[in-house]
Parts: sequence; structure tokens; C-alpha cells
Amino acid sequence: MRERYLEDLQVGDRFESAPYEITEEAITEFAREFDPQPFHLDRDAASKSIFKGLVASGWHTAAITMRLLVTSGVNLAGGAIGLGADELRWPNPVRPGDKLRLEVEIVEVRQSRSKPDRGTVRIRYVTRNQKDEIVMTLMATVLVPKKAETTK
Amino acid sequence: MRERYLEDLQVGDRFESAPYEITEEAITEFAREFDPQPFHLDRDAASKSIFKGLVASGWHTAAITMRLLVTSGVNLAGGAIGLGADELRWPNPVRPGDKLRLEVEIVEVRQSRSKPDRGTVRIRYVTRNQKDEIVMTLMATVLVPKKAETTK
Repeated sequence: MRERYLEDLQVGDRFESAPYEITEEAITEFAREFDPQPFHLDRDAASKSIFKGLVASGWHTAAITMRLLVTSGVNLAGGAIGLGADELRWPNPVRPGDKLRLEVEIVEVRQSRSKPDRGTVRIRYVTRNQKDEIVMTLMATVLVPKKAETTK
Repeated sequence: MRERYLEDLQVGDRFESAPYEITEEAITEFAREFDPQPFHLDRDAASKSIFKGLVASGWHTAAITMRLLVTSGVNLAGGAIGLGADELRWPNPVRPGDKLRLEVEIVEVRQSRSKPDRGTVRIRYVTRNQKDEIVMTLMATVLVPKKAETTK
């Protein structure tokens, strides 16, 4: 992927990642470490829950979304350094065997007022499954260096 | 931990988790799977980055925060089912050996208008390190069942 500095990004730019399959084993392994609740850990217990079956932790979906951004979404110069995120939603559950992919759209590009060598970019993330259902959305603010200053 | 239904929660209630230590191995292992960037993967490369040393992925901190909530923070009836989150910020980096703990505060309790058996609770999360520095904040909206209806 081509490395992108602040000058390389424009409002409306879109990027799409490769797909990533989530397995039952990955769901339960993540849950054991970070979100040990019955509907993430055990198929039988999950079938009696509000989800009617095993579902991934929303934080697992968020971590996979980060993986998709970094490995095949967009290559931001200096790395994807998130300052914060808002509007994190999980409108549909993620289930074993789902193939997730990420679409991102640049919704704001802003030069830093105090630091000429950088700026911030607001990025809208939409993570979908193989049925095109939205499983996660997020609005992130990311620090991006400027090429002109960085390569002087 | 005592299980808490909607009726058991009031605005201003606070809960604090046990501490959790994050190791260098855990940081790099999480990063290899979900956030493979030099400042999360490799001590030498990280020393040359904006962070001046190895730091945990913000999504790793978020996952640990969920672990702290579920295992020693507050026991919500039916599980901690997040509908969404806002105002996710990482004001200070998390480094190897940091001991994280979570404080949560109930900031809103709302009965569902359409469904008498449940409601939503807004929870403010503050994750701190051993120096009391804030490493993550988050405002989450969580679905919580009512006891009166659930146990009828």
C-alpha cells in the first residue's frame, strides 16, 4: 500500500480492506482473555442468550477492524495513531465463520494550527459481514504527518 | 459480585475494578494479531517512534478495560451488552509493566419506553495506570434488564 501523508488525503477518499474470516475458536479465545461472558464463550450457553447463538465480543470486532485498517485498508504515514473515537456502534452481531471487511472514508482533513508538520484526519469506518450487513461503525480522529515538513 | 438489574443502579453509583498488569509479551502478541505497527511490536523500532518506546495498542487497552469491567467491575444482569460507545480517548500511552484499573460511574439510568422488561444505562469508564494517569476514557450505553419483569 502506498504511504499517505496529510497532503495525500482528501475528503471523500475511500479505501476498502481485504476480507477476514473470524472462527469460533478465535471468538472464544478472545473472550476468555478479554470478555468472559457466556454468549462469547460457549455455544450452548449462547443459544439461550439474547443473541440466540455464539457472538464475538464487540471489542474483538473492533480489534479486527483495526487489523483490517492497518494490514489492507490505508497506509497512513507514521502509522495509524488514533487520538480518539466516537460513535462506536455494533448494529449486528458477528458470528463464527463471518467474513469481515472494512470500508473507510475520509470525512475531514485538518492542518494543525500550532504544528506545521502534522494534521488530523477524521475517518468514518464501516465494518461489514459477507451479507453486507453492518457489524460496526466508528468515527476516528487520527494524527497524520505532512510530507512537505517531514521530508525536508 | 452482586448481580445488578436496572432497579439496582442509580446515577452516581461508582465501581472500581481490581488491578491488571500488562506485560511486554502481551502487548506484542496482541499487536501481531490486531495492530501490527512498529511502536506496538518492537522495542527498538518503538524507541524511534513518536512514543519513544513500546506502547500498547489502544484497542488492547480497550479490551483490557472490558475484562476489568466484566471480571471485577460491575456484574450487570444479563451481561454487559454494549449498544454503543462514544468519547473513546487514550490521553496517555500504556507501557509494559503498567498496572491498569477501571473506575466506572453510572451517569444515566433510563427505562425503555417500548419494552417494560429493560432499560439502558450510560456508564462513564476511566482506566488509569499505577501512577493514576488516565490511559483511557469511554462513555458506553449498555442494555440492562429489569428484575421485576425478568423474575415474574
